[in-house]
Amino acid sequence: MKEYIVQIEKELSKQIDVLNAPSIIKKAMDYSLQAGGKRIRPILLLSTLHALNQEINRGLSCACAVEMIHTYSLIHDDLPAMDNDDLRRGKPTNHKVFGEAMAILAGDGLLTYSFQRIAEDQQLTAQEKVELIKLLAMAAGAEGMVGGQVADMEGENTTLSIDQLEYIHANKTGKLITFSVVAGAIIGGATQKQQELFSKFANHIGIAFQIRDDVLDIEGDQAIIGKPVGSDITNHKSTYPSLLSLEGAKERLHYHINQAKKILEQTGLRTELLFQMTDLIAVRDR
Amino acid sequence: MKEYIVQIEKELSKQIDVLNAPSIIKKAMDYSLQAGGKRIRPILLLSTLHALNQEINRGLSCACAVEMIHTYSLIHDDLPAMDNDDLRRGKPTNHKVFGEAMAILAGDGLLTYSFQRIAEDQQLTAQEKVELIKLLAMAAGAEGMVGGQVADMEGENTTLSIDQLEYIHANKTGKLITFSVVAGAIIGGATQKQQELFSKFANHIGIAFQIRDDVLDIEGDQAIIGKPVGSDITNHKSTYPSLLSLEGAKERLHYHINQAKKILEQTGLRTELLFQMTDLIAVRDR
Repeated sequence: MKEYIVQIEKELSKQIDVLNAPSIIKKAMDYSLQAGGKRIRPILLLSTLHALNQEINRGLSCACAVEMIHTYSLIHDDLPAMDNDDLRRGKPTNHKVFGEAMAILAGDGLLTYSFQRIAEDQQLTAQEKVELIKLLAMAAGAEGMVGGQVADMEGENTTLSIDQLEYIHANKTGKLITFSVVAGAIIGGATQKQQELFSKFANHIGIAFQIRDDVLDIEGDQAIIGKPVGSDITNHKSTYPSLLSLEGAKERLHYHINQAKKILEQTGLRTELLFQMTDLIAVRDR
Repeated sequence: MKEYIVQIEKELSKQIDVLNAPSIIKKAMDYSLQAGGKRIRPILLLSTLHALNQEINRGLSCACAVEMIHTYSLIHDDLPAMDNDDLRRGKPTNHKVFGEAMAILAGDGLLTYSFQRIAEDQQLTAQEKVELIKLLAMAAGAEGMVGGQVADMEGENTTLSIDQLEYIHANKTGKLITFSVVAGAIIGGATQKQQELFSKFANHIGIAFQIRDDVLDIEGDQAIIGKPVGSDITNHKSTYPSLLSLEGAKERLHYHINQAKKILEQTGLRTELLFQMTDLIAVRDR
């Protein structure tokens, strides 16, 4: 898995390097791409390819694309008009370094480039590219991540039901995680049945990921997470622990982790990396 | 051409309507899409299809996609961190109505949806879609419109050379206009030679469009343009008139218009709509 991270970060670096664009926007895009993310989404994509006994090369463009989309969303979320965060992964946020205007444009540039990279890929078929671009846009846009962010903003300072909370997270973080796994399945030539299993698996780890996020905001170590803890309570945000109690949230986390693992077993594929990722999501400390 | 505008606006409306997303983000996206733009880019695309004797139906998704990209760029450009404009086409800008956070997200949503619409189209081949998505992303991203906006920001309060000015406008507005024409050529099945002629034609009208913009900022009627005139001088921006004199700028405008028309004649195609568009760009009052 460390080998995957090395390859992804090398490829991301190369993709920014080849851009024929003003150097300041390349720096701004690269700054957030290289700011030490966990690379969960691209690793999930490559690990799904691995599960299907495929070389990971064919998934590298799409893995980078999904990381670009994730990174753009963090840059825009951190803006003063949105969450107004000064720190991300222990480093100043993009607009703190490059200014707000450049941060908006760096996000726009990354979002746009993600689709270009899939379209330009040399190894995927045209049909695969079209399918991946469509699903990525659906996962990232108003019907997915952007819509989830809107619902999250609208839910501030109100007590949500658990259904409303799940809607927000399914869209805000879940769909891009699901896309990552499903993209690996598509590129790896999974059968329809396998794709469905991978999709269900991804739904469970997506929810588990978010519950762990909420738990870390209570129990986490600020120095490891790289941003202040306790902000959900300060901001009066509904979370899994606030709705289910901390113990209840942890129980639900383990339920989704166990379901995810059961589904992996059902695939009968080479899923040891996806098992590791599932465990990592359950116990991660940042 | 009025028929084209009706069809484009109807299709844009429908495409937002079918989105499964929180109603407030749909309203914010729709507000700017329906705020009375001139629809120059989608009309150019459809008029190029017409020149090639093709039905315009096959171009409608892509025409809407390019209008979505243009609209997102206006929403983000108007933000307080960017140009801080309160009025656009005589109406309050998106963030004035929906707030900054929603305006950022509405722009992100439109940008993302534009690629989805091309990928989802029922009539284009997978190869056509991939080519259109790649070219659209190149025209809109850091190597195109976003890069031009960055160069524009960096050039503020300095006197640019005419080459620097042309670089900014070629990227900030030129490439999306060129894409619109080239996309029509691709969808219409133009030969390589025809595509090259259309691309040259589009470069000329792109420059002419920008010179006219600069001239309107001096000679235009605020009530017709829908935003304050004279802002280039107030903001110490280099423009064609400031570098070439008003007369010099007008001469250059007519040079590019004449070149554009010569190229249209060379195609030997049914270019009467593109001739009309060329004239419209030269004399438009908003």
